[in-house]
Amino acid sequence: MAESARIVILGGSFGGLTTAFELKRHLRNQADITVVCDLDKFVFIPSLPWVSMGWRQPDDITIPLDEILSPKGITFINEEATGVDPDSSKVITANQEIPYDYLVIATGPALVFSAVPGLGPDEGYTECIFTLEQAQKCHKAWERFLEEPGPVVVGSVQGVSCFGPPYEYVFEIDTELRKRKIRHKVPITFITSEPYIGHFGIGGVRKSKRIMEDEFADREIKILTNVAVEEFTPDEVRLKDGTKIPFKLAMFAPPMAGVKAVFHLGNEKGFIPVDSNYRHKQYSNIFSVGVAVAMAPPEKTPIPTGLPKTGYMTVEMAKAAAKTIAADITGKEPPQVEPVGAVCLMDMGSTAAIMIAKPVVPPRQKAELKAGVQYKWLKAGFEKYFLWKIKRGLTQLP
Amino acid sequence: MAESARIVILGGSFGGLTTAFELKRHLRNQADITVVCDLDKFVFIPSLPWVSMGWRQPDDITIPLDEILSPKGITFINEEATGVDPDSSKVITANQEIPYDYLVIATGPALVFSAVPGLGPDEGYTECIFTLEQAQKCHKAWERFLEEPGPVVVGSVQGVSCFGPPYEYVFEIDTELRKRKIRHKVPITFITSEPYIGHFGIGGVRKSKRIMEDEFADREIKILTNVAVEEFTPDEVRLKDGTKIPFKLAMFAPPMAGVKAVFHLGNEKGFIPVDSNYRHKQYSNIFSVGVAVAMAPPEKTPIPTGLPKTGYMTVEMAKAAAKTIAADITGKEPPQVEPVGAVCLMDMGSTAAIMIAKPVVPPRQKAELKAGVQYKWLKAGFEKYFLWKIKRGLTQLP
Amino acid sequence: MAESARIVILGGSFGGLTTAFELKRHLRNQADITVVCDLDKFVFIPSLPWVSMGWRQPDDITIPLDEILSPKGITFINEEATGVDPDSSKVITANQEIPYDYLVIATGPALVFSAVPGLGPDEGYTECIFTLEQAQKCHKAWERFLEEPGPVVVGSVQGVSCFGPPYEYVFEIDTELRKRKIRHKVPITFITSEPYIGHFGIGGVRKSKRIMEDEFADREIKILTNVAVEEFTPDEVRLKDGTKIPFKLAMFAPPMAGVKAVFHLGNEKGFIPVDSNYRHKQYSNIFSVGVAVAMAPPEKTPIPTGLPKTGYMTVEMAKAAAKTIAADITGKEPPQVEPVGAVCLMDMGSTAAIMIAKPVVPPRQKAELKAGVQYKWLKAGFEKYFLWKIKRGLTQLP
Repeated sequence: MAESARIVILGGSFGGLTTAFELKRHLRNQADITVVCDLDKFVFIPSLPWVSMGWRQPDDITIPLDEILSPKGITFINEEATGVDPDSSKVITANQEIPYDYLVIATGPALVFSAVPGLGPDEGYTECIFTLEQAQKCHKAWERFLEEPGPVVVGSVQGVSCFGPPYEYVFEIDTELRKRKIRHKVPITFITSEPYIGHFGIGGVRKSKRIMEDEFADREIKILTNVAVEEFTPDEVRLKDGTKIPFKLAMFAPPMAGVKAVFHLGNEKGFIPVDSNYRHKQYSNIFSVGVAVAMAPPEKTPIPTGLPKTGYMTVEMAKAAAKTIAADITGKEPPQVEPVGAVCLMDMGSTAAIMIAKPVVPPRQKAELKAGVQYKWLKAGFEKYFLWKIKRGLTQLP
Repeated sequence: MAESARIVILGGSFGGLTTAFELKRHLRNQADITVVCDLDKFVFIPSLPWVSMGWRQPDDITIPLDEILSPKGITFINEEATGVDPDSSKVITANQEIPYDYLVIATGPALVFSAVPGLGPDEGYTECIFTLEQAQKCHKAWERFLEEPGPVVVGSVQGVSCFGPPYEYVFEIDTELRKRKIRHKVPITFITSEPYIGHFGIGGVRKSKRIMEDEFADREIKILTNVAVEEFTPDEVRLKDGTKIPFKLAMFAPPMAGVKAVFHLGNEKGFIPVDSNYRHKQYSNIFSVGVAVAMAPPEKTPIPTGLPKTGYMTVEMAKAAAKTIAADITGKEPPQVEPVGAVCLMDMGSTAAIMIAKPVVPPRQKAELKAGVQYKWLKAGFEKYFLWKIKRGLTQLP
Repeated sequence: MAESARIVILGGSFGGLTTAFELKRHLRNQADITVVCDLDKFVFIPSLPWVSMGWRQPDDITIPLDEILSPKGITFINEEATGVDPDSSKVITANQEIPYDYLVIATGPALVFSAVPGLGPDEGYTECIFTLEQAQKCHKAWERFLEEPGPVVVGSVQGVSCFGPPYEYVFEIDTELRKRKIRHKVPITFITSEPYIGHFGIGGVRKSKRIMEDEFADREIKILTNVAVEEFTPDEVRLKDGTKIPFKLAMFAPPMAGVKAVFHLGNEKGFIPVDSNYRHKQYSNIFSVGVAVAMAPPEKTPIPTGLPKTGYMTVEMAKAAAKTIAADITGKEPPQVEPVGAVCLMDMGSTAAIMIAKPVVPPRQKAELKAGVQYKWLKAGFEKYFLWKIKRGLTQLP
C-alpha cells in the first residue's frame, strides 16, 4: 500500500466529519483524506425541527465545511458523488473520478417520498423537516397556517425508521399554539405506523409507552397507532383502513433508503451490509457508518417499521470504523467493537426527555427514559457545544 | 316594542334563575320578568347524590322560589307549562296563557326511562338521582339494602349524556361501605356506554382515562365499558352482548330529551337549536339555556353517548342569553359570545376531583384534571356559597 | 370417644405443623397427635426461589421435623402415606396402618407436570422451584446458563393456581443479570395463562395490573398474557397460538392437584371439599387445610387458572381447623370462622411488594399493594423469624 493511504469519505455530516477527524488523529500524515459532499456546509440536523418552528435561523445551526476541513489538512470536494466503482476503487462525480484505497460511505439516507402518493413537500402535500431546505419550507407553511389555523396531522407513514422528529414536532406545535392562545382552534392528530406510542422502532425504552401515552393525553393530542397511509390529498390524509382525516397542515416522516450513488453496494433498500467493525461484508476496503448502514429492526411490527439511527450512534460507528481503518493501515489487529448504544434528547416543546439504550436493540444492560425541563436546557446547550466542537474537529472531547 | 318588555322564563333552576337575575340587573324596570316553574323550590341538583346517601336532607339544599324571586320584583307562576305557541308568542299552562315578548327555555331535560325496559324508579327496577324525589327514594332503597347487602350495579345506559352522577354515586357507596366495614359483602360493577372510563361524553379530559381506571382499580370496582343494556329485570341487568349481572341495588342514569311543552321547538330529541348567543335558530324572540339546548357531542362513540351540560355551563349560557336579550331591548349590538367552558367538581366519596375544560369540546386551550381531598372541601363549601348567593340573586359575584 | 383422641395429621409443612401445635395447645393431654410426612424436615417454601438463585443454602431454610415435634410430645412418622380408608378411619403407609379419630389432610399439592408435554425438570425441559430438590436442580441449571447465556422464558402454563414464584423468579434473574452486567445478552420473556399481568389468579389486587405492567416495562421483560402452552421442546416453548419462543433456560409453574393418597376423598382434581370450618363435607372426622383444600377461583378466565393458596392462608386455615377439632373433642360449639384473608410478600430481586387481600376473593373490605425495598427487608426478616418460631412451636406469636 502507498505510504500515504488515500481515504475518500462520502458525506459531510456527523458520520463523515467524525470519521475524517478520527482518521487524521490516528494516522496524521500516513493518510490522504478527502471528504466528498454535495452540501457546502455542515447542518446540525437535530435542530431542524427548531428551524421549522422559527426558533432557529439556518445560520445558527450550520458551519461551512471548508472552514472546518481546510485547517485540518483534509481535502474537501464540494460535488455530488454519482457513483462508486468498487472493482477499480473509484468514486465518480459529474466532473472527475476519485481513486481511493479506502472508502467510507457516510452519506446518510435518501428520502423515499414516492412510498405514499401525495407524501412530501415537493410533489406532495405534506411538510418534512429532514433537510434544512425542508425545514425552511415547513416554517413558511407554519406562518401561513397561523394566519388561518385548522386541523393538523403529524406522523410517520409505513416503513419509517426515524420516528423522533414527528414526536418533537407535534409537541412543539402544541406548545407554540398554547403560547399563542389558539390551541382550541387546532385539532391535532398524531398518526404512526408504530404498533404503539413510544415504540420508536426499537420496541420502546422501559415504560416509554405509558409515559408517552400520558404526555399525548395531557396535551389532548389524538393518537392513531398501527396504521398505514393510503394517500395524501391536498387537504386530507386517507388511511388504508378507510379513515379520512382533514388537515390544513401536515408533517410526515418518509421511509428511507440508500442514496443512488451507492445503492448497488447495498441490500434491497440500498443500505450497506457491514460487519461489527462497519466494514462492507463483500468489499474489504469499503466501510459505512450512520444511516447508510443496514441494521435489522429488533422485531417485526404489524405495519412495517425500521430501526432508527441517531447522531450519537453515527458518531460511535464513525469512531469504530476510523479505528479499524487506522489499524489496517498500520498493520495492527482490528479493534473489538461493542454493539452501538444510543443516547437521545427528545424535545417536547415545553420540556424534553432523555433516552439511553445500551445496546440500542433489546435485551439491554442499560435503559433509561426521563423527562424534565433540564433536558431541554441540556439539548439547547448540547447544540452549541457540538457546533463549537465540530468546528474545531475535537471528536475526542466527551 | 312595549316600554316594559314581557320576558317569560321557563324553569327555576340554574338557568332560569340566573337569566332572571341577570335580566333584572341589565334592564331594571325596562323588563317585566316572569318565571314559570312546576316546582315551588330551587333544588341544588349537584347535591342530590348526597341526599341519596343520607349525607344531606332536602331542606339543606332547597330554597322556596317565592322567597328568592319576590324580593327582586320577579313574578313567579308555580304552574307547569304544557305548551308554547311561538307564532302567537304565548306560554300555555293548565290555567292560563302567558303572552311574552321574549321567551327563555331553561326547563332542563325530560328523563327518558322508556329507552331501556325496566329502567327507572317508577316503572322499572333501577334507582335514579336526577330529581329530589328520586334521590329521596334512592336513599330509602339504600337503607333497605344495608340491612341485607348484595351486588350493586351503577352506570349509564346507551344514549346517556350526563355521566357524572353515576361516577359520584359509585365512589360514594364504595366509601360508605368501607366505613361500615361491609365492603366485602358487596360486589360492585360499573357499567357504562362510554367507550372508556373517564370519557365523560367529552372525549376525556387530559389523562382522565388513566386516572379514573386507577381509581376504580384501587377501589376494586369492576368496570364494563362500551356496552349497551338490553333490559333490567327486578334483580338483573342484561347487556346486549348477553352478559347478565345480578343486583340487589341498581342506580342508572337515563338518556335525556327536551320536555314535552317545548319538544316541538326542538330537534328530533326535542333539544332547542340555538346560535352562539343562545337564540333559537328559527324564532328570534326565543332563547334557550342549559340542558334544554341542542349541542353536538365532540365525537361519535361506538355506543351512542351525548354531551353533558353542567351547572357551570348553564350559568355561562344564561348570562350570555340575558346580555343578548338586554342588548336587543335597549337597541345595542348583540355581544360576542365565546364557546362555553366547564368547571366541574366531582365527588369521589373520600376525596374529589376538579375538571376544567375550555372550551368543553376538544380541541381545548385549557384543560385540567386534579384530584384531592381539598376539592371535596371546595365542593362542600361551594354548595353553601351558591345557595347563599342564589337566595340573594347575586349572580355577578365570582 | 377415647379419653385421649387419636389425631393423625398428613403433612409437615405450614398446615401440618400449625395444626399439630395448635391442637397440642388447645387439648394438651386430651389428644394423641401424630404427624405423618415423607420428608424428614420442614422446608420454608417461600425461600425456594432464593435457593434457586444461590442466595440461600438448603440448611438456611430447613429444620429437621424430629427436632421440632419430639420436644412437644408429638409423634412423628417419617413415612409416605399411600392411602386413607375413611370408613375404617385408617391411614395406610408402606409399613403400617395408622388408626385415627380425627384426620387432618395438610399434604399440600401434587405437581401435575403431565399437563403439558415437556414440562418439568424430571421428564421435561423446564426448571421448577416448588420443592427443595427442584430449587437445587434449578440452581445448577442457572450456573450452567451463566457460562453461556441466552434467551430465558419464565411463566405459568394453563391451569396454574400458584402464580407468585414465576413473578419472583423473573424479577430475581433480571436483578442478578444486571448485577453481573450481562443483562443485554439475555432476552427474557414472561408467559402466563393469567388474562393480564398482575391478575395472580385472584382478579388482581387494587391496581396490581398497572403496577406490574410498569415493573415489567421498566425492566424490559417482554410479556405474553392470556396464552396456553402446546408443548416444550429442549430449547423452545410452543404456544397454542403457534408462537415459538427459543430458550436456553426455562422455569415454569405447573398445575396442581390433590396428592395420590387422598385423591379419592377430593373433587375431580383431588382437592378436598370442606365447609367453612375446614371439615370434609362428607366425612365429619376428616379436616383439610392449605393447598389440599378445594377453593373456587373468583372468576372464570379465558385460559383456565386457579386460586392460589399462600402460607399465610394455610396457617389461618390450620388454626381454624384445630380450634374446631378441639371444640368437637371437648364438647363445645364449633367456632364461627371468617373467610380467609391473605398477606403476601413478593420478592422482586432488587425490591419487594406486600399484598394484603381480606378476604382473598373480591369483593374485599381491605386490599393493599405496595412496593418498596423495606418489604425486601421485611421478607428476609420474616424468613428468620418464622423459622425461629416454628422450631419452638410458637404459633400464637403475632
